[in-house]
Amino acid sequence: MRTRVVDLRSDNVNKPRVEMRKAMVEAEVGHDGMGEDPTANELQEIAADMFQMEDALFLPTGTMSNLIAVMVHCRERDDEVILGDLSHIHIYEQGGTAQVAGVHSMIVNNLADGTFNLQQLESKIRHGYPKVHFPRSRLICVENTHAILGGRVLPLSFLKEVRALADRFGLSVHMDGARLMNAAVAQGVHPSTILQHVDTVTVCLSKGLGAPIGTILAGPKDFISRAVRCRKVLGGAMGQTGILAAAGKVSLLENIGRMEEDHCNAKTFAQAVLDVGRPLFALDMTTVETNILRFFTPDPSLSPTEFCTRMAQVGEGEEAALGQGIQVLMLPLFGDSVRAVWHLGISPEDTQLAIRKMQFVVSQYLKEKVKV
Amino acid sequence: MRTRVVDLRSDNVNKPRVEMRKAMVEAEVGHDGMGEDPTANELQEIAADMFQMEDALFLPTGTMSNLIAVMVHCRERDDEVILGDLSHIHIYEQGGTAQVAGVHSMIVNNLADGTFNLQQLESKIRHGYPKVHFPRSRLICVENTHAILGGRVLPLSFLKEVRALADRFGLSVHMDGARLMNAAVAQGVHPSTILQHVDTVTVCLSKGLGAPIGTILAGPKDFISRAVRCRKVLGGAMGQTGILAAAGKVSLLENIGRMEEDHCNAKTFAQAVLDVGRPLFALDMTTVETNILRFFTPDPSLSPTEFCTRMAQVGEGEEAALGQGIQVLMLPLFGDSVRAVWHLGISPEDTQLAIRKMQFVVSQYLKEKVKV
Amino acid sequence: MRTRVVDLRSDNVNKPRVEMRKAMVEAEVGHDGMGEDPTANELQEIAADMFQMEDALFLPTGTMSNLIAVMVHCRERDDEVILGDLSHIHIYEQGGTAQVAGVHSMIVNNLADGTFNLQQLESKIRHGYPKVHFPRSRLICVENTHAILGGRVLPLSFLKEVRALADRFGLSVHMDGARLMNAAVAQGVHPSTILQHVDTVTVCLSKGLGAPIGTILAGPKDFISRAVRCRKVLGGAMGQTGILAAAGKVSLLENIGRMEEDHCNAKTFAQAVLDVGRPLFALDMTTVETNILRFFTPDPSLSPTEFCTRMAQVGEGEEAALGQGIQVLMLPLFGDSVRAVWHLGISPEDTQLAIRKMQFVVSQYLKEKVKV
Amino acid sequence: MRTRVVDLRSDNVNKPRVEMRKAMVEAEVGHDGMGEDPTANELQEIAADMFQMEDALFLPTGTMSNLIAVMVHCRERDDEVILGDLSHIHIYEQGGTAQVAGVHSMIVNNLADGTFNLQQLESKIRHGYPKVHFPRSRLICVENTHAILGGRVLPLSFLKEVRALADRFGLSVHMDGARLMNAAVAQGVHPSTILQHVDTVTVCLSKGLGAPIGTILAGPKDFISRAVRCRKVLGGAMGQTGILAAAGKVSLLENIGRMEEDHCNAKTFAQAVLDVGRPLFALDMTTVETNILRFFTPDPSLSPTEFCTRMAQVGEGEEAALGQGIQVLMLPLFGDSVRAVWHLGISPEDTQLAIRKMQFVVSQYLKEKVKV
Repeated sequence: MRTRVVDLRSDNVNKPRVEMRKAMVEAEVGHDGMGEDPTANELQEIAADMFQMEDALFLPTGTMSNLIAVMVHCRERDDEVILGDLSHIHIYEQGGTAQVAGVHSMIVNNLADGTFNLQQLESKIRHGYPKVHFPRSRLICVENTHAILGGRVLPLSFLKEVRALADRFGLSVHMDGARLMNAAVAQGVHPSTILQHVDTVTVCLSKGLGAPIGTILAGPKDFISRAVRCRKVLGGAMGQTGILAAAGKVSLLENIGRMEEDHCNAKTFAQAVLDVGRPLFALDMTTVETNILRFFTPDPSLSPTEFCTRMAQVGEGEEAALGQGIQVLMLPLFGDSVRAVWHLGISPEDTQLAIRKMQFVVSQYLKEKVKV
Repeated sequence: MRTRVVDLRSDNVNKPRVEMRKAMVEAEVGHDGMGEDPTANELQEIAADMFQMEDALFLPTGTMSNLIAVMVHCRERDDEVILGDLSHIHIYEQGGTAQVAGVHSMIVNNLADGTFNLQQLESKIRHGYPKVHFPRSRLICVENTHAILGGRVLPLSFLKEVRALADRFGLSVHMDGARLMNAAVAQGVHPSTILQHVDTVTVCLSKGLGAPIGTILAGPKDFISRAVRCRKVLGGAMGQTGILAAAGKVSLLENIGRMEEDHCNAKTFAQAVLDVGRPLFALDMTTVETNILRFFTPDPSLSPTEFCTRMAQVGEGEEAALGQGIQVLMLPLFGDSVRAVWHLGISPEDTQLAIRKMQFVVSQYLKEKVKV
Repeated sequence: MRTRVVDLRSDNVNKPRVEMRKAMVEAEVGHDGMGEDPTANELQEIAADMFQMEDALFLPTGTMSNLIAVMVHCRERDDEVILGDLSHIHIYEQGGTAQVAGVHSMIVNNLADGTFNLQQLESKIRHGYPKVHFPRSRLICVENTHAILGGRVLPLSFLKEVRALADRFGLSVHMDGARLMNAAVAQGVHPSTILQHVDTVTVCLSKGLGAPIGTILAGPKDFISRAVRCRKVLGGAMGQTGILAAAGKVSLLENIGRMEEDHCNAKTFAQAVLDVGRPLFALDMTTVETNILRFFTPDPSLSPTEFCTRMAQVGEGEEAALGQGIQVLMLPLFGDSVRAVWHLGISPEDTQLAIRKMQFVVSQYLKEKVKV
Repeated sequence: MRTRVVDLRSDNVNKPRVEMRKAMVEAEVGHDGMGEDPTANELQEIAADMFQMEDALFLPTGTMSNLIAVMVHCRERDDEVILGDLSHIHIYEQGGTAQVAGVHSMIVNNLADGTFNLQQLESKIRHGYPKVHFPRSRLICVENTHAILGGRVLPLSFLKEVRALADRFGLSVHMDGARLMNAAVAQGVHPSTILQHVDTVTVCLSKGLGAPIGTILAGPKDFISRAVRCRKVLGGAMGQTGILAAAGKVSLLENIGRMEEDHCNAKTFAQAVLDVGRPLFALDMTTVETNILRFFTPDPSLSPTEFCTRMAQVGEGEEAALGQGIQVLMLPLFGDSVRAVWHLGISPEDTQLAIRKMQFVVSQYLKEKVKV
């Protein structure tokens, strides 16, 4: 029995397609650390134009992009960044803001849709040149779509209010838009409609956009020229990046349109989860806005880890008889939830296979439960 | 009209008394940076003995003591500290943990009594040698008494549970016990009964203990020998500290007993606030456990700032006629509250004067309100 | 007139050849940040094996590799690194050791051949657990070949003595071997013969080895597992690195042998410089050991900048008549010297063209001088 | 036999005299962290006035003062400080510039008189907004008098040239003037004559000036207001510092004149060392400019450590018979030298006793040598 793998652990796992590889092999290159790589330069212009930012910079990862954003916005001793308590920067980037950049974090609670309570946000700002007990707030970070909370899209009205608050206190706003294009597609707007409210943005060319490596950091000219320096000191000023930038170009020019398909697949699977429903699964369909599905397993005997393990097992007996040689990979997450992410590597057919596997796992589980 | 000042802004404002100054002038000294100051050495032994810790170190401030504690416990790259969102370290020490020590903070919500929800605390721990996305939790900090929350005393049962949790995951526990002795006095226990649950502690000799300058950091021998190094690099290895240590000895040997009086004065004033009551003031008497009183001003037209301003004004007309030449200094605080702190410099009589002033301010305010 | 460019500014400027691009397009990939990229894993095994180290890690740049080496070896607060005053880490990596890693540098003078005076080196070590005034020496860095000093190869006897000294005081030794393979080729030894004297090494797959992007950091298993964490926090944990690792494999498996040719070309050009000789040029042929040529311009009217500018100019008149449509790019360097670097992109024929251009520039310069 | 101790290890070891203690006991105090200590405020005004600087700040140690100076001058990410290779900041402050402040050090060689070669200094500056490989030079530090080099006084002409160089490249100049007043006394000038060439200065009130604790950091208003913030985050914002500031006032107002006596005593002892002369001792009298004497022991069998040990031993037999119950404490130092430092605690008579002890040690040593 040959096993088919449907890897929904992350949109980082998709692999570059043929046309992207072809662009890579034919890329014109130069030394990017010296600013001489024509393909990287071209990609940066395309990105700046698309995001309606003055300038853009190609970077190896989203983690480096966010770290550099904090390093540049908070470049003076005792500057402070305001972050959501469930933000990727705070939780998943090894505390680089403090460890590498020496910048203190003031934490705001993320609401379920990735936003903040604006009053709480305001209360966290230490503005002007404050008394000596306090650092000085310099930067508010927002995350769009919000990863841990399940790919939630920040409402434009929220961004407008954050912008107004930031302006009132002279703060900058950085968007961790690793999945910005998913937000734009979900909202049916041009990315610049979203980005008009922020100073700088991180956008990953990998993940849903499908490039093997690469992230864009975009913002004002002065910001990017400082970011170039930070890229150097962190060791991110690579050689002939044109190879990677060529894939990045394809990702920006050809892969945005198809993201709708990922969102659609996620909703299809979500509906199947909802059909199983309680007591095994809990899910609010309105939270499925993009390519990330997050649902809960209220039944304590079917924990997220247990469920994911069963989805990844390929049975030999009955399952094989049913032709279920399908391995579906998902991740248990914070707060008793399961995460599944759709991307270029997952077709509607894969999604149907994943649904069948899920239904098989559920029925097996229920059978065992009855026996007990 | 001569004005009498009752300064309740902080227990940092009290001034050394005659016997303390006398001890200072007669102190035997040597160079403490070289470990040769006999009085500092003696004080350190007294403190270590009193706190039942292996060793103790004299430091210029509580801020340095807490910073050093974080620096030593989290001394490897990528170590992380777990802090309460209303802790002094997180809010009032200029973000030194990140700015100076490069240590990332994971934030837990402080409950109203200064404790944490233990389940939430556990969920914040990143233990073992975690995956690369995470820093590694090394240290839990607790604050006792809890300053921002109004001098709340941590229950011994809570400390026992935090200790058990820390042990389970191999973490250390540091207590910011700037006002540890207030907690011990309020609980009627020896400080070592509290400290048995923690690895290290900061105890201020100033504040309620009345020394002009000085803080003790206590812990295991190995910890203190590393702390000595941190003290040096921060610029806290002073010369003939015996002058200050002599005052510190007096504070530890003679000033603990009288703290009960501060607590009593605080409760007396609190009762007077409660007697005025709503709609002007809101106060839960059970929260007044030590020398800090925190009460709320629900009436929006009498904001904390407005109230404190009125308490500090010395009127010329009617007030003088009433003999109210009294200036009472308090501080508006987070969350629409007012803070008042009792200490060596405030007698029962001062407290009565402050009550009369408060009653006068209230009656004036009510008169004006009627007119409007 | 079509211009031929001979770019000798750096061995970073060469561009990937067809077979390397082909390997890239066909590479099997997975998510390297999750440790799932088969090509990156294979490259790391090849490198570890070649360098006779326990483990190896693929990184985007040499700067990141050296930075991580310092971060891991000096991972405790107050650790110190000993560096040559002309080392790449000290001069050209934006001070990342202090800026990013918070590690203090103790500086030793580099001798003309890249070595240190061993007595001076020993005098800089602050060993054991030193008195509080001092940081604690943890790491000695050597550079082989030495870039600023003109590609000098460290004698094996020197490395042996550094190793012995380090062992005596319990220090680690890291080699910035960005151009390690040039040293091995020049000494006619296997790289492991050199590396037996060090704990860890940085080896660039770009530069003389010709990969577009990529560096190997190799060392003990425990060291590499910590390096993986540092790579993450710096933002160097990339996605489908197999694309780049495939080129890296080609560089290690096929491009070492041909380095001899670069060394030979460098010597050929050096001989031509020597033939012009004083007063225009000064050069000690014994210093031309690898692919970097560094020579001096003692005549103040022909400064390094002036000379390089003339080499880069493509004349229209007389020069064109002579068929000299050749642009030769070199870099002025520290201490009134000129640097030229040979690499895959430069053939023996290019070298002859560069010699002819140099001779033309010299004759033009001398003609002008006579006129004045 | 009662032993008399002449402690020449450091001018940090002297103890406060009666009048200074009296000033301390009578000092008016307030909370300095809140800017309310009248005596500290007065001291700061006296110091600013004396140094002809806009503002001044009282700090617990010289190490903190220098660290803060670097933190404020180099307050942006990637700023760099230029330091002498034998400067106290580089050698004796535990690498705090990198460890705490994240500032990279570029090292210049100190000449024997504490100055730099100005051409070398200029070559180390990375000015303007440099290329990405480099940090940006912001600050030059000079040390006056220079401790390791034996209390050498920087010539005013040198300072003028450093100032001009700094101005040319837009750098600041900080003077580690821990012993500034010794320089002023030795040069017979007002301190402001020296300080006209620098932006900021550290001056210790302890050491030769005799206060038990305390250092002044002086500079422009804007600089000091930032320094106040750094003092807070480092934990140097103490309580009722008036106690210490009172001693500081005495040190500045009454103890400068008598420094001449220390310099005189140092020269007297130096002459006695010179009288013994080679092969035991080597000394250039022109280097004895202030209160620090540094001489060499060329005879390998009488190492600095051996000599200092003998000076500190109090013999029982012959020595006692000679009435030599004198313990003289000195320190072995870098480069086979011995250091002795004069201060308030050492009278001319003490100096004579130290000379007699030295002569006794020498004669004993020579006797033993003959026997061998």
